[in-house]
Amino acid sequence: MDKSYLMAPGPVTVDPEVLAEMSRPVIHHRSPEFSAILTEVREGLKYLYQTRNDVLILASSGTGGMEASVVNLLSPGDKAIVVRGGKFGERWSELCNAYKVEAINLEVTWGEAVDPQEVKKALDDNPDVKAVFVQAHETSTGVKHPVRELGIMLKERPNTVLVVDAISALGVYELKTDDWGLDVVVTGSQKALSLPPGLAFVSVSEKAWKFAQEARLPRYYFDFLRERKAIARQTTAFTPAVSLIIGLREVLNKIIKTGLPALYAHHRRLSEATKAGITAMGLELFSKAPSESVTAVKAPEGIDAQDVVKLLREEYGITIAGGQAQARGKIFRISHMGYLDEWDMLIALAALERVLNRLGYPVEPGKGVAAAEAYLVQN
Amino acid sequence: MDKSYLMAPGPVTVDPEVLAEMSRPVIHHRSPEFSAILTEVREGLKYLYQTRNDVLILASSGTGGMEASVVNLLSPGDKAIVVRGGKFGERWSELCNAYKVEAINLEVTWGEAVDPQEVKKALDDNPDVKAVFVQAHETSTGVKHPVRELGIMLKERPNTVLVVDAISALGVYELKTDDWGLDVVVTGSQKALSLPPGLAFVSVSEKAWKFAQEARLPRYYFDFLRERKAIARQTTAFTPAVSLIIGLREVLNKIIKTGLPALYAHHRRLSEATKAGITAMGLELFSKAPSESVTAVKAPEGIDAQDVVKLLREEYGITIAGGQAQARGKIFRISHMGYLDEWDMLIALAALERVLNRLGYPVEPGKGVAAAEAYLVQN
Repeated sequence: MDKSYLMAPGPVTVDPEVLAEMSRPVIHHRSPEFSAILTEVREGLKYLYQTRNDVLILASSGTGGMEASVVNLLSPGDKAIVVRGGKFGERWSELCNAYKVEAINLEVTWGEAVDPQEVKKALDDNPDVKAVFVQAHETSTGVKHPVRELGIMLKERPNTVLVVDAISALGVYELKTDDWGLDVVVTGSQKALSLPPGLAFVSVSEKAWKFAQEARLPRYYFDFLRERKAIARQTTAFTPAVSLIIGLREVLNKIIKTGLPALYAHHRRLSEATKAGITAMGLELFSKAPSESVTAVKAPEGIDAQDVVKLLREEYGITIAGGQAQARGKIFRISHMGYLDEWDMLIALAALERVLNRLGYPVEPGKGVAAAEAYLVQN
Repeated sequence: MDKSYLMAPGPVTVDPEVLAEMSRPVIHHRSPEFSAILTEVREGLKYLYQTRNDVLILASSGTGGMEASVVNLLSPGDKAIVVRGGKFGERWSELCNAYKVEAINLEVTWGEAVDPQEVKKALDDNPDVKAVFVQAHETSTGVKHPVRELGIMLKERPNTVLVVDAISALGVYELKTDDWGLDVVVTGSQKALSLPPGLAFVSVSEKAWKFAQEARLPRYYFDFLRERKAIARQTTAFTPAVSLIIGLREVLNKIIKTGLPALYAHHRRLSEATKAGITAMGLELFSKAPSESVTAVKAPEGIDAQDVVKLLREEYGITIAGGQAQARGKIFRISHMGYLDEWDMLIALAALERVLNRLGYPVEPGKGVAAAEAYLVQN
């Protein structure tokens, strides 16, 4: 047998039923049949997002959704606060630089969450800041930033919008777009939605729509107003990624049937079991604000985390992720997103034990697995 | 039986073998396995494009590829000539406007091809023009513009690049990127490549790379230089649309096996047979420079072309396209792109005869079909 396991934080494992759905014959994007599908998925996205506002669907990776959020809200020379505590926080800065938005970077140590008081101070020091850019979950470090607190803080500031990259958060754990005052929330198809990559989604609050009316940064393919007009006609501004949207309908229907509370509980269960196993092996979590999306683990002293990733892939067909940029070689990351269940976590832990032993870090065989299984049986 | 036929100029019918290939389990985009696939499809794209230069792969619709071509080559205030003879010519103008590029619009009557001498005159009148934007095939009118002549003309002008939207041309009929001096050629997945929508491709000549070094328009997601760096590392700048690229490999392998000459002959055969059938019904072609991609037909006097489209869909499950913008209601368009064969053209013509009769335009049953079949047997 030559089974493979994809446990990296995106692309993730896709449910074979969804893959089968996407392999149905392609239909025309301007047909009544496809309009009906669009209407259905747009309702489903509102449930997923917990929003009454429209959720835009873009044919791009998640970064396209991030770029869309910059160019549709701001004008050249505008100021923005960027929470920078990982590779994706840095991406917000890079986007601001590319578009001549003045980024006030709040440097956060990788592995730590931003302190909301730091954001408050930066806002007080810079009352003309137009936007705060942050990750709900920083995929590169496994850290959850306190977006709920930031949302409540920014609700009181009519001249500043909160823009949240929730690419590896939405659908994993609770994130209430409207209730928490998250003005713009970006996600992608290839994380918690368990689809192949190629779609980005962006919710836009009433407050953010006002910003979109004023924003003077140039844009065409990623244009919120153009997309909103297309929604009114039950279509998209440009040719949509038809097959992915058909897969999306299947996924959203499954999510609605499961219910968000059960979906969140599922990710929590996988995450807690994995973290119990990791701790039992004597390993340390990298994140000080660990998420249900990803378990980021420090490689033991003297072991290159990339070797852990490589051996898992080569010996056992298990794909997890290493660290990126400054965390490369230092951490490895196991995803709980995608079409995975609790048995998959036991597999990952068992294989990890073997690999660590081979690399010279002694683990009693089954120790991590047993701790995870004990958690699963008790919870 | 409830069979459906997709004969619109994109999205097109996808080969079920390709759909099946795309329904294989998703793999990680940073794995050695996926790098090997990328390398393979990049070679295949060079064959398709007839180029020695790199072909960039973007996760977007074709419009994203068009936008990329504007923002990577030009700076604010630059001048560009736009050949505007259809909806997609207009899109070049809109992109220029969005990015503050001064568009010199060469208005071409819908249904006609641009006269290369008009372009030459505009170039002579505006020696500081940085780029000429044109469609190889204007999908909205079924017109082939003379990009070969334009390429030869621009080879002699080192300060001007030729940018060709070949979204519904590349892979349909001969288009020699390097030999003809086409500096930037854009295509998408959902036309001649017979894949679902979601990928754009852009070839960049050495001359165009120099422009990309100088261009000051803002960009991030669509950045040629960033993509070129990623190619050197056998990866992509941002998460690629993995499943579509796996389908692309399958399609390109089939194209290589078939060979471009046979592929072009196939489209010519379908197109000529259809045109013979259309003419035999007493109908008139809309395009004065008809393509092998699409047959654009004028609706008979007193008949709304949208009714033709609607009845074909509702009564026979056949999806063709109507006209867009100023051509709406006046023309309908039958595609020869995608996973279609000569029998499909007979089906389209037979159903069209029935629909026209029903709408009050008398056609002797089988007349168009017979003319098409006669062409097919003789050629």
